[in-house]
Amino acid sequence: MFYTIRSFLIGNPLASWQARGERLGIPLAFVIVAANALSSSAYASEEILLSLTVGGTTLHADSLVITLAITVLMVLVVLSYDYVIRTYPNGGGAYVVAKENLGTGPGVVAGASLLLDYTLTVAVSVTAGAAAVTSAFPGLALFPGLAPLRVLLAGLLVIALTLINLRGVRQSAKFLALPVYLFLACFFLMLAVAAYKHITQGVLPAPAPGVVIMGTTVVGAFQLLRAFSSGCVAITGVEAISNTLNIFKPPQVRNARITLFTMGLLLAGLFLGLSFMAYAYHLRPEEGQTLVSQAARISFGNSALYYATQFSTLFILVVAANTSFSAFPPLAARLARDGFLPRPLTNLGDRLVFSNGILLLAGFASLLIFFFKGDVHRLLPLYAIGVFIGFVLTMAGMTRYWWRKRGPGWWHSFLVTGIGTVVTGVVLVVLTVTKFVSPGTWTGAWIVVAAIPVLLFVLAAIHRHYRTLAETLSLEHHVPSVTAPERVVIIPVGGVHRAVLPAVEYAQLIGKNVQAVHVAVDEDSARVVERRWDRLQTNIPLKIIPSPYREVVRPLVDYIQGVAKEHPSEHVTVVIPEFVPRHWWQGLLHNHTAMLLRGALGRQDRIILVTVPYHLPR
Amino acid sequence: MFYTIRSFLIGNPLASWQARGERLGIPLAFVIVAANALSSSAYASEEILLSLTVGGTTLHADSLVITLAITVLMVLVVLSYDYVIRTYPNGGGAYVVAKENLGTGPGVVAGASLLLDYTLTVAVSVTAGAAAVTSAFPGLALFPGLAPLRVLLAGLLVIALTLINLRGVRQSAKFLALPVYLFLACFFLMLAVAAYKHITQGVLPAPAPGVVIMGTTVVGAFQLLRAFSSGCVAITGVEAISNTLNIFKPPQVRNARITLFTMGLLLAGLFLGLSFMAYAYHLRPEEGQTLVSQAARISFGNSALYYATQFSTLFILVVAANTSFSAFPPLAARLARDGFLPRPLTNLGDRLVFSNGILLLAGFASLLIFFFKGDVHRLLPLYAIGVFIGFVLTMAGMTRYWWRKRGPGWWHSFLVTGIGTVVTGVVLVVLTVTKFVSPGTWTGAWIVVAAIPVLLFVLAAIHRHYRTLAETLSLEHHVPSVTAPERVVIIPVGGVHRAVLPAVEYAQLIGKNVQAVHVAVDEDSARVVERRWDRLQTNIPLKIIPSPYREVVRPLVDYIQGVAKEHPSEHVTVVIPEFVPRHWWQGLLHNHTAMLLRGALGRQDRIILVTVPYHLPR
Repeated sequence: MFYTIRSFLIGNPLASWQARGERLGIPLAFVIVAANALSSSAYASEEILLSLTVGGTTLHADSLVITLAITVLMVLVVLSYDYVIRTYPNGGGAYVVAKENLGTGPGVVAGASLLLDYTLTVAVSVTAGAAAVTSAFPGLALFPGLAPLRVLLAGLLVIALTLINLRGVRQSAKFLALPVYLFLACFFLMLAVAAYKHITQGVLPAPAPGVVIMGTTVVGAFQLLRAFSSGCVAITGVEAISNTLNIFKPPQVRNARITLFTMGLLLAGLFLGLSFMAYAYHLRPEEGQTLVSQAARISFGNSALYYATQFSTLFILVVAANTSFSAFPPLAARLARDGFLPRPLTNLGDRLVFSNGILLLAGFASLLIFFFKGDVHRLLPLYAIGVFIGFVLTMAGMTRYWWRKRGPGWWHSFLVTGIGTVVTGVVLVVLTVTKFVSPGTWTGAWIVVAAIPVLLFVLAAIHRHYRTLAETLSLEHHVPSVTAPERVVIIPVGGVHRAVLPAVEYAQLIGKNVQAVHVAVDEDSARVVERRWDRLQTNIPLKIIPSPYREVVRPLVDYIQGVAKEHPSEHVTVVIPEFVPRHWWQGLLHNHTAMLLRGALGRQDRIILVTVPYHLPR
Repeated sequence: MFYTIRSFLIGNPLASWQARGERLGIPLAFVIVAANALSSSAYASEEILLSLTVGGTTLHADSLVITLAITVLMVLVVLSYDYVIRTYPNGGGAYVVAKENLGTGPGVVAGASLLLDYTLTVAVSVTAGAAAVTSAFPGLALFPGLAPLRVLLAGLLVIALTLINLRGVRQSAKFLALPVYLFLACFFLMLAVAAYKHITQGVLPAPAPGVVIMGTTVVGAFQLLRAFSSGCVAITGVEAISNTLNIFKPPQVRNARITLFTMGLLLAGLFLGLSFMAYAYHLRPEEGQTLVSQAARISFGNSALYYATQFSTLFILVVAANTSFSAFPPLAARLARDGFLPRPLTNLGDRLVFSNGILLLAGFASLLIFFFKGDVHRLLPLYAIGVFIGFVLTMAGMTRYWWRKRGPGWWHSFLVTGIGTVVTGVVLVVLTVTKFVSPGTWTGAWIVVAAIPVLLFVLAAIHRHYRTLAETLSLEHHVPSVTAPERVVIIPVGGVHRAVLPAVEYAQLIGKNVQAVHVAVDEDSARVVERRWDRLQTNIPLKIIPSPYREVVRPLVDYIQGVAKEHPSEHVTVVIPEFVPRHWWQGLLHNHTAMLLRGALGRQDRIILVTVPYHLPR
């Protein structure tokens, strides 16, 4: 039945040789890889404007300068990841680049940061989506007695994403292609219409009251840096492609590069377009209306296209989470293969995806959503820091790589990644500092700053365990044991009846020194057991252990451990007779002594458990 | 740690020889045995008056007649249970009496009805207590967002009662003696003051408007019967003593009889006293004030004694539940010993009480409370029917007993129980009919009428299981098996390392036909396993099973079942090597193939599982 439900939810299992058929062409791979990056461009411009709005004044000119600077950084990042893809065509991204070029430590730091970032992305995207739905349909808020509806909705979205990703990459891409391409169409149409109106009508609309002539306010360098850093969210998501190389059809590297550059171009187009539009139309951040909504109203009025833009923006926020579902599991599997995360994360599931990684991501994201009660604003600050740690370490790694290699024309690439390292490093410092300086977001920053070291500690402990294990289990210096065992066998006997006989026969078969043990909860039944045992005529001695406190398992365990101590050089075999009922409810009608005994003895040294089943005929 | 928590909650375990010290003298035993009966007297008079109030008229004279009639029935019931105690000094009450004299069927019906009644008593008493607390402190109702507070409080009361009963009978009696004796003192003082006032002041207080001269209304016979039946709740609880004989210090029968008669006297005194007081002072049922409250106001005004009476009445309602906690477990244990309920109910727990019975009662009562959302009025109708089934069958059983025996002076006793049978039989019919006639209580009656047959069906199924089991397991016609086994042994191998070696050695020790099996999830690792296995030089063949769907457990199980089919006349032994990690978290770092394999093979016929542990050194 379990298999039927599983097949219904995620489809029939795929054989290993079907892996090739699960690979994606560029149009579908783009959906998976780019969703996260595209979604961040939907709010990056607004972040910049917010940082540059002081006392009712928005510094539009400065914002344009910063937008251009970020676009330049974006080009550096895209070029760097192009190097990464070409240099490490088997994927692995920041983790592999940093590990190979800077050492295991930086590699693990990069990997852990990205895992954290992917988890946060899922939590933030999904709660943003849920918040949008609950505010769109206020009627849903009529049930205050229930658990907060937003949390519930967000949880359902996580479950939906988990299921479509467990179905496999191909399936999830098919599900999500429509919203992604609708978003792109709406957004570029919006920018085109705005540009057309601006050119044909030639004049600016009347500036809203409170808009001051640009450039008159003097801002500090720190404020500009802060605006630059907050705009850098536009670049997050570019790294995903380096962790999901395995989804591309061959030629893998060529397809991934085409996708990367396409994504970079579209991203830059969206980001620059929206920022220019904000400049041209004097748009400024408003309470209760996003920048995208303002822009869509200018281009489309209140037409259906306006709603299409709004809804597809909402969708792309949720779809962004899907990129994490594609990037987290292979990265986690890679860390697991190197012994930094639990080995089960390397298992390919029924549908040829790393199912355990998907479930782990869903679990942790759900915990975050539940812990923060669906309050997105408290999650947002945690967000960008992880990505930028990844950026810095990737670029530093690539810079080191070029320096070591110094092939022909090496200094071109060296410069690109070198400058990238410095700039992303500065952004990382500014991001971290500002998260701590602005009081509203303090809680969040504290958690991310604590989470990375904790995660690293856990990874180190896991690694130590696997290393010790490998040393211990090695057969290098193995000396076969030479003891001539006495074959000590103990049969715990609850009552003397037919179900005990197979166990007795088996014990006689495998043991030399066989004994039976009965725990006497009261004297009368002990005498009955003794009498019946004698009548069996087995030649096996029966030991009666009195139990004044009426416990059965503890005295048995004590006795068996005592026997094990008497024979320090060999194993003690415990042969447990066990009823197997025909129906589940019959199981409720028995004392599960066999089960409890197995639980208590299962972890004891030198004790071997043998279960001899007896099937009830009816 | 589990043992520490348990000791803290319920005390240290008691040895079997300490049982004698846990027995109670009359004053403490009275608390346990009488609480339920006393609590019902607190509302029986009111029930009669309610049934006799029609259109604003209360028939006080009729109520007095009915009260006297019920008191006569009470005497019959007390006398009958005195016979029961003397005839069956080992306890067992209605179940044993009916089984011995009327047959197993009626015995089980009586037992099941009482079990149901005890469960309902707990649910009703506890929710009544919780309702009284929440209405006394309206501030508590300020949290409507939480789960209904009454249900929560009732649940906490059930947990408290469960814990003090798991501590043992002696402990629970000590906890509850104070409220019971306080209740008795307040109640009798109240009656004495009222009588004194009535005699000294000589006059009745002015009758409230709407009180009509008594006896002018003609009531039908059915209405009188109904009033009689509803007043019969005063008698419920008398039967408890026959199920809790084992709590008395020796001389057991003498002590129990003294307690029974004391209880009968006090009960009659309370019941008659309150009814007479209602008659003398023209009290009538009021919305929002109980009869006890009215009576206490007359005697004590608004003094502290009034509040003491009210609070002790509230307490005794909750304490009534404790009687069920003492009577249910021994009755359930007796049914279990005869194979009508699961055997674990016969286990004496750490504190020499039937812990499983206590937990079962608490569980079912909690379910009822949760299911009825703490709405007492819907539980009340279910209540008396079970007790009266018990009464009828006990009395019929005793009547049959006297008839069979016909010793000297037998017809005295025969008459007492004979008349008792007829009267309680009539009450039972009237109770059942009225529950169905009055529409408000219909839901409740439906459930109890359905519950008893369902319960009987379950008991019969359990009995059938145990009977079949006993026949199957009997050693009467046992023929020892004579096969000369080939000793087929299979070792599932995940990888070739040191942890596998003990399993291999053990398999060679016990088997003749030994083989190893490896499930190949991918071809590369299969080759590694094969090469390393050859290097071990064990002479054991290694079979590689390809698994294109990357499952491990299913192909193994299929293979092992195939081998079992090839050797239809003997057991197949599966020797499973298993890691035992040092720390719990290390367990998360491995694929629990051994555990899953045990789960899948544990219920298979003719397959014997051997677990060979390998302890990780660090």
